Amino acid sequence: MKDIKVNQDLIRERKKCSFNVEELTHLIDGGEQNTLERKEIEEYVLSNEELRDEVPEEYLSHKERYENAVRKACILYSLLLRRSIERSPPPDSRISNNYKIATAIIKDISPFILHFGMFLPTIFSQASPEQQLEWLQKSSQMIGTYAQTELGHGTFLRGLETTATYDSDTEEFVIHSPTLTSYKWWPGGLAQTANHCIIMAQLHIKGKNYGIHPFLVQIRDMETHMPMPGIKVGEIGPKLGFQTANNGFLGFDNYRIPRTNMLMKNSQVLKDGTYVKAKNNKLTYGTMVYIRVTILTDVAYELSKAVTIAVRYSAVRHQSQLKPGEPEPQILDYVTQQHKLFISIATSLAFRTVGRWLWNTYNQVVADMGKGNMDQLPELHALACCLKAVCSRDATACVEQCRYACGGHGYMVSSNLPIIYGIVTATVTYEGEYTVMLLQTARYLVKAYKQTTERMSLTPTVSYLAKFLKNNNITWENTPRGIIEGFQAVAAGKTKEACESLFQHINSGKVYEDAWNLASVQLVNASEAHARAVLCEMFWKETKRLSSTVSNNLATVLEQLAELYLKYWALEKRGDLLMYSTISKKDVATLQKRYEELLALIRPNAVGLVDGFDIRDEILCSTLGAYDGRVYERLMEQAMKSPLNSEPVNQSFHKYIKPFLAKAKI
Amino acid sequence: MKDIKVNQDLIRERKKCSFNVEELTHLIDGGEQNTLERKEIEEYVLSNEELRDEVPEEYLSHKERYENAVRKACILYSLLLRRSIERSPPPDSRISNNYKIATAIIKDISPFILHFGMFLPTIFSQASPEQQLEWLQKSSQMIGTYAQTELGHGTFLRGLETTATYDSDTEEFVIHSPTLTSYKWWPGGLAQTANHCIIMAQLHIKGKNYGIHPFLVQIRDMETHMPMPGIKVGEIGPKLGFQTANNGFLGFDNYRIPRTNMLMKNSQVLKDGTYVKAKNNKLTYGTMVYIRVTILTDVAYELSKAVTIAVRYSAVRHQSQLKPGEPEPQILDYVTQQHKLFISIATSLAFRTVGRWLWNTYNQVVADMGKGNMDQLPELHALACCLKAVCSRDATACVEQCRYACGGHGYMVSSNLPIIYGIVTATVTYEGEYTVMLLQTARYLVKAYKQTTERMSLTPTVSYLAKFLKNNNITWENTPRGIIEGFQAVAAGKTKEACESLFQHINSGKVYEDAWNLASVQLVNASEAHARAVLCEMFWKETKRLSSTVSNNLATVLEQLAELYLKYWALEKRGDLLMYSTISKKDVATLQKRYEELLALIRPNAVGLVDGFDIRDEILCSTLGAYDGRVYERLMEQAMKSPLNSEPVNQSFHKYIKPFLAKAKI
Repeated sequence: MKDIKVNQDLIRERKKCSFNVEELTHLIDGGEQNTLERKEIEEYVLSNEELRDEVPEEYLSHKERYENAVRKACILYSLLLRRSIERSPPPDSRISNNYKIATAIIKDISPFILHFGMFLPTIFSQASPEQQLEWLQKSSQMIGTYAQTELGHGTFLRGLETTATYDSDTEEFVIHSPTLTSYKWWPGGLAQTANHCIIMAQLHIKGKNYGIHPFLVQIRDMETHMPMPGIKVGEIGPKLGFQTANNGFLGFDNYRIPRTNMLMKNSQVLKDGTYVKAKNNKLTYGTMVYIRVTILTDVAYELSKAVTIAVRYSAVRHQSQLKPGEPEPQILDYVTQQHKLFISIATSLAFRTVGRWLWNTYNQVVADMGKGNMDQLPELHALACCLKAVCSRDATACVEQCRYACGGHGYMVSSNLPIIYGIVTATVTYEGEYTVMLLQTARYLVKAYKQTTERMSLTPTVSYLAKFLKNNNITWENTPRGIIEGFQAVAAGKTKEACESLFQHINSGKVYEDAWNLASVQLVNASEAHARAVLCEMFWKETKRLSSTVSNNLATVLEQLAELYLKYWALEKRGDLLMYSTISKKDVATLQKRYEELLALIRPNAVGLVDGFDIRDEILCSTLGAYDGRVYERLMEQAMKSPLNSEPVNQSFHKYIKPFLAKAKI
Repeated sequence: MKDIKVNQDLIRERKKCSFNVEELTHLIDGGEQNTLERKEIEEYVLSNEELRDEVPEEYLSHKERYENAVRKACILYSLLLRRSIERSPPPDSRISNNYKIATAIIKDISPFILHFGMFLPTIFSQASPEQQLEWLQKSSQMIGTYAQTELGHGTFLRGLETTATYDSDTEEFVIHSPTLTSYKWWPGGLAQTANHCIIMAQLHIKGKNYGIHPFLVQIRDMETHMPMPGIKVGEIGPKLGFQTANNGFLGFDNYRIPRTNMLMKNSQVLKDGTYVKAKNNKLTYGTMVYIRVTILTDVAYELSKAVTIAVRYSAVRHQSQLKPGEPEPQILDYVTQQHKLFISIATSLAFRTVGRWLWNTYNQVVADMGKGNMDQLPELHALACCLKAVCSRDATACVEQCRYACGGHGYMVSSNLPIIYGIVTATVTYEGEYTVMLLQTARYLVKAYKQTTERMSLTPTVSYLAKFLKNNNITWENTPRGIIEGFQAVAAGKTKEACESLFQHINSGKVYEDAWNLASVQLVNASEAHARAVLCEMFWKETKRLSSTVSNNLATVLEQLAELYLKYWALEKRGDLLMYSTISKKDVATLQKRYEELLALIRPNAVGLVDGFDIRDEILCSTLGAYDGRVYERLMEQAMKSPLNSEPVNQSFHKYIKPFLAKAKI
């Protein structure tokens, strides 16, 4: 840290910390080497003067914000290109913190996000080796995005309306948008930025529909950037967040592309129009699962930003009197404030830990798939769906809680909490809507339940079902193990009830689909409970494993946080536990007491813990959360950057207010 | 409705409705006469062409948005002034829907909001009769606001730092901001709009501090609008919402005002510096309680907007297949969607109903206070605190749920859901922070608990404590009455536990304040449970009362919604009920079944119910929620208004992207 004056409260907090903060940082980054590399990249990029804004972007018009984001994105990617970083990223770059600098440069999402996030990965996973060779050579001139969702269709892929009709005479596909609702809608960067796009469209050959397939489409001229004839493209307008992501719409008027622009790693269309089916249609699952898996670490990171801001602010802010005559305490000393915040520290670690475990599982499943073994894909898919849903929702709730914990100042954009909220809450919907995701997992649970009743063996992550469906009187224990088993009992109980409800509806004469719909509230609940059980179990297991690799002091703190996480959720879900486990009211009281003890134990380390996330001030972008704790000075400095504050009287007084008052006088 | 083409699904939905929609509208407005008056004002204002925006305000820069808001606010208030409406508003105008047109004109809050919302009410309630006479005469030239919160102080009024020191030589108060943290921070309209301000400051006379008092301060020149010498004023910057509210900061450098500018209805300072204490210092509670009471109907209204949007969209949107080969169903037919939305219809009615009851209670208490009877004030205060907290939080959760229920399109600003969210979530913090409010009520509950143990009689809203603390084995009934008693049992049980925890900490040697802090998580829970019990009881009772005044068909629907509300919360809080009431697991299953039946019963009336809120399209401001259901057309039309869409290639291509690609080529 540079020579800055640090707030006295923060200095005192940092002295109290019982563990080595750097050791925690290394653990979070996945090793000291990663930390060093991250810090080096951060310093390299953030020391660039051109990347600073004269006027904070929130004061600009929508159009100016976009233009400024393009400006900065070009500088950023030039810098990264110069170091060729994006050409050989480390194998787990997608879940590491190393490239979060982008959020410092373009707070509200880069217009190039889908180029790196979806366009290139889709080419890697769905283009044939020859296509990859050709396109990646040209890729330095391509700005790509990925267009699947349409104005009228998101969740239901089979309902997409855009058509790609093969014309064997010219060996071309004719891409067409037959209706308003068939317009592509949402892709980041599509509006004014991208010149290429991978689109998903219904493949028609000789009057037959072969379903959804991916196509590479050039949408703008490479020289002039004008939309190609037959292409209607533009932006969809402002959103809750992602203001500079340049989300766009795209319509086609019988737009022709060469046959070879269909991505042909899996299915193919030959010159004469012969359709060659993919060997395995599950292969296309890959990208979807991949994105969902990475969302866990994405939201863990955003949450670590939010809680860093809220904890540091709570250490600096003093308010009210605990005792008459005494000075106002730090608000972090209020137990209600600890109750609001410490769960977010624990949750961020939980999602990062479970996210890394899921990432490893994903890579192992993909490796197996490469060898032709698809057995684990359904389980991974079921797991990724419910964890994506629950983690995105929980993270959103935690971010909001962090914002509330900062009172009015948390409502200021300069706190950065509103922007973090906008980014995190979007994950609840994108790449698989919350309820739809839980119902996907529910299908897997129903299948597993049937297997249990038929005494078939179960896949590992649902194997607890057998145990608890056989015996739901397992003695309650107020231990982590006991709580995990409690959550498994809840998930098993809810799965059983949902299945029974489903079967009852069927037995009463409903067709399966109607019965499913009628039981769906319970099915969603079962799926959520399953995710909760997995999160608790894997967070605890992985923490125990990781604890053995670090110093005792850090291990103690990590285990306190994991225990806090379990206790918090046991208390939140005590209704479920009372319904489905053998927990007693006395046990609940014991849990509450221990939970409050844990708050007190974590209190002295709170600032140290968020310091351990090691988020640079430029990335945190927060008046409330900076390392030095100069909260009030920063709030005022930031306010003074408002263009409205650059003149003593705004023109609207003379134009509108004065004439209005003059009229009112009469 | 004009001659518009209405979506076929909506036409069908409207035909299914079992009750008279207008009758519901009259009920919500508080009588047919109110509805007529509201519609007349709406038509009068909204037919004014000047109030329309060429470019939607979300595309403008922060400064342009403010200037445009001032322009429209001046037109709006001129129109209203011409009809002299604001001079003789109906007695319950603050909780009626009649003046919600402002939200159509200035979506993200008018810069004049605090002039009408706080400045004038404070003059009415705290200025002496002579002052009122003088100031209200001048008020046509005043644009006022109300400044209490400081950069460093919100919750803790006694901690405010701004000083007003009396100088008996000149008969003036010297107003001063001794520190950065003493700057006033937040007041709406303060930044560039207001020329007067009521400030709260520490009164010092001859070296003695008499605590916080209100003063009227002129902050800008009436002719030039320049800040007065000694005044530093400006805006605080963008926020999550309230973008055009022009929230400001204000600092004083030994700024002098006449003695007679202290608001002297209650306390007074005489010429010679003699301090005359208020006869009753509880009188200043008034405005705070007043605002909190009105927040219930404010959030009820905002929620009715959100759920109107979400329900209409869910009737228009088709997605997925329930059954193979069949057309995609309206998403409103998914039970999970009904589960997400119908509680918001019920909640909006609940808060409006309970809000009106609380408003009547408030008026009666104020009338009693006028006669010198302050007995009911503490109970009203306790009630307003916890209801403000719980209703603001619940409404925020419901609005967010409505937004999620609209999938990606709910994330678009053009849906208006993000703006509604910004407005509603602010109520959780302003005018009494959530946790602080619940702890206020907890103090009342602890007192009541002590009274119970001492066999003293209790005030009506907490009288259930006596019953349930005596006997917590009251037989559970799966009826509304039973559920209400269940919630009372929960509140009584939690109050008892929190008190016991508090006393235990005291007995173990803690001072009261530390014990209070250690028990605060439980105290907050008790207070929340109390609010929940009051909401359920009063919503049910008032619905039964109102049902008897309307037609049978409407009565049936109203009671279904009230029952849904009770069942929903019983299921949400079943953990609490299992802990503190005699409900069985079987009862919970019965409740779940009945809850799902209610969803099915309400389904055919869903669109009719939101139509009954009768919110004009111009006020709803939503692409997704308009009466005609032209969802996709509106989304595209609104997007086409983006300035980015007015040119085929944005300049950033030539300025940044092209050079960037050229470099990348090499």
